[in-house]
Amino acid sequence: MATVTLLTDEQLAPEAAAVFADIRATRGTDYINNFWRALAHDPALLARTWSQLKVVMGPGRLAPQVKEMIYLAVSIAHGCDYCIHSHTAAARAKGMGEAELMELMAIVGMAAQTNRMVAGLGVPVDEAFKR
Amino acid sequence: MATVTLLTDEQLAPEAAAVFADIRATRGTDYINNFWRALAHDPALLARTWSQLKVVMGPGRLAPQVKEMIYLAVSIAHGCDYCIHSHTAAARAKGMGEAELMELMAIVGMAAQTNRMVAGLGVPVDEAFKR
Amino acid sequence: MATVTLLTDEQLAPEAAAVFADIRATRGTDYINNFWRALAHDPALLARTWSQLKVVMGPGRLAPQVKEMIYLAVSIAHGCDYCIHSHTAAARAKGMGEAELMELMAIVGMAAQTNRMVAGLGVPVDEAFKR
Amino acid sequence: MATVTLLTDEQLAPEAAAVFADIRATRGTDYINNFWRALAHDPALLARTWSQLKVVMGPGRLAPQVKEMIYLAVSIAHGCDYCIHSHTAAARAKGMGEAELMELMAIVGMAAQTNRMVAGLGVPVDEAFKR
Amino acid sequence: MATVTLLTDEQLAPEAAAVFADIRATRGTDYINNFWRALAHDPALLARTWSQLKVVMGPGRLAPQVKEMIYLAVSIAHGCDYCIHSHTAAARAKGMGEAELMELMAIVGMAAQTNRMVAGLGVPVDEAFKR
Amino acid sequence: MATVTLLTDEQLAPEAAAVFADIRATRGTDYINNFWRALAHDPALLARTWSQLKVVMGPGRLAPQVKEMIYLAVSIAHGCDYCIHSHTAAARAKGMGEAELMELMAIVGMAAQTNRMVAGLGVPVDEAFKR
Repeated sequence: MATVTLLTDEQLAPEAAAVFADIRATRGTDYINNFWRALAHDPALLARTWSQLKVVMGPGRLAPQVKEMIYLAVSIAHGCDYCIHSHTAAARAKGMGEAELMELMAIVGMAAQTNRMVAGLGVPVDEAFKR
Repeated sequence: MATVTLLTDEQLAPEAAAVFADIRATRGTDYINNFWRALAHDPALLARTWSQLKVVMGPGRLAPQVKEMIYLAVSIAHGCDYCIHSHTAAARAKGMGEAELMELMAIVGMAAQTNRMVAGLGVPVDEAFKR
Repeated sequence: MATVTLLTDEQLAPEAAAVFADIRATRGTDYINNFWRALAHDPALLARTWSQLKVVMGPGRLAPQVKEMIYLAVSIAHGCDYCIHSHTAAARAKGMGEAELMELMAIVGMAAQTNRMVAGLGVPVDEAFKR
Repeated sequence: MATVTLLTDEQLAPEAAAVFADIRATRGTDYINNFWRALAHDPALLARTWSQLKVVMGPGRLAPQVKEMIYLAVSIAHGCDYCIHSHTAAARAKGMGEAELMELMAIVGMAAQTNRMVAGLGVPVDEAFKR
Repeated sequence: MATVTLLTDEQLAPEAAAVFADIRATRGTDYINNFWRALAHDPALLARTWSQLKVVMGPGRLAPQVKEMIYLAVSIAHGCDYCIHSHTAAARAKGMGEAELMELMAIVGMAAQTNRMVAGLGVPVDEAFKR
Repeated sequence: MATVTLLTDEQLAPEAAAVFADIRATRGTDYINNFWRALAHDPALLARTWSQLKVVMGPGRLAPQVKEMIYLAVSIAHGCDYCIHSHTAAARAKGMGEAELMELMAIVGMAAQTNRMVAGLGVPVDEAFKR
């Protein structure tokens, strides 16, 4: 139900094809998921988004599985169905098992519950929490 | 700017006082933050919320710092100012440094960006991501 | 911290003054809250919004207090601080006591929790729920 | 399109089976909706969520139909399709007719509209609304 | 997957039929989209919503295409799939091409990213931005 | 109420100072707003975010004022107070007057209202809107 068509490899502009080649090389798979095929309508936007994602999700202080779980938690809070599916798959590929997934779900649900109670009661930030 | 008053220790019903005692014992500090003082208007709700939180954020598969960072990520996505402050403080108390905080911020921002692009383009879920 | 000034009675265009007069007559109080003073920069928008609100929150199938509590629940879910404060006050004026307020908070929190779990697990709608 | 499988009765751990039995007894129907079948992957989370829901949605100050309508309003504000469907069905089962449903929709829409205007104009909370 | 049925022309109350006639005349097409068919269960709500929409989206300071793109941006931020599809179609009908659509997507994504970073870092509003 | 300190020019790492110099040159003003001072804790994230923003908000198909209004509309939908203030100021600097601001507000409010009604009624996407 996309609002734009999903481009096939044959329909790509050269700049978009170069990004697809880098995605394939970086991930070690020939599969390109739908998000990139939709974004390929604007090769410059595709290139900026992919290069930024590579840096943000690349090596850092946090473990790759932890990074994916944070990405997934945000996607759940935003109610983005596509993102939930793709980042659940990515987190599983990086080692997340069913037990960790359910633990994540419990935390996300707990946060949602207390977030709304705090908003509804208008709780002021404790001085102890300020920098 | 609370919509209810924040109860002092002297104003607590006995059931609420018992919960406060358990919070103090569990956390090893005398400090009770404003959220619990607002919730204390309904001792049963206070007790349910605290006992649930203790289980969800207690020992499990994920490290305590990771759990707090997931909680924080959801609070940011919900735009809950109080929750952002309290869980940033909690994550710091469990070992999160400035570098990890900024790495979290980069992931949360990246997720927000791609979440909205995916929604706007109506990208359908890849068959490869379904269970 | 408004992005527009809050207009005083002296600064109103005649069409805005007429709306203020109707708000005062309808509510039986001289007090005009800040929302209307901000909206008064566009008298036509002010008039449309007020006349729509009068109908929506006026007599109907649901009791006035219930209507205000539904309004409040949405405002909490949206994290709108101003709206939470004004509709908590309005619901109290229509009979909501502290016990009902805390019961509302428990429902809103519970809904937030299960809403996120459902999204995160990608639960498909039961056939039994469809029309 | 679930990210986890929906467990059948045959696949349940004993603790999960006990919760299903209680859901059936409490609701007086054999039907178990998909949410619980997804949550059953973590019997402890299933048990906590169900026991909390029973208390929150059980007898209190607010009428059962009102409680369901507040739950529904939050689900609409969160854009949770599954929750909207299940709680519309639940509210109907507790007496909500088409007229009340449309009245709810008008309130939820009105709240969304003014919530966004208030945010956009940065309207400060009236002193009169503070506790 | 509607929670109400979509009314056909034959099922309309006279007041709803009059609104449908006005939609057809205003838009110069016989096609009535699903939103109005759902809303038709409450002819008064249908009439209020349509008359408000006609004014808001009618002639003003902003160009029709710009108005539709702002409407679309909000719908993306809310994750409303139906609204994204209908307002993408409407914006295209008013002149938006693929390049403008992708430019919109880049802005919406950028705004989402910085919005979350700002929330997460608790950045205070600059004095320079206040009125 | 920031969760990190806002860095002064004296506290900047060389890479962050270089970004600040580019912001000043690009905008033709010495003033650096709080968002960049918070982000400066991570010079690489600061540099990526600024360079991306320069491209996204730079010359394109859409007029600068229109771009800022789309940015503002998303910020309102997200309830990001800081972003609302900074992008209202930016849109004004690019020519938005009070009349356009109020027209934007009417559209954002209208979109919020219909978005929630659509979600609540579970309206299915018309075939006519699909690509």
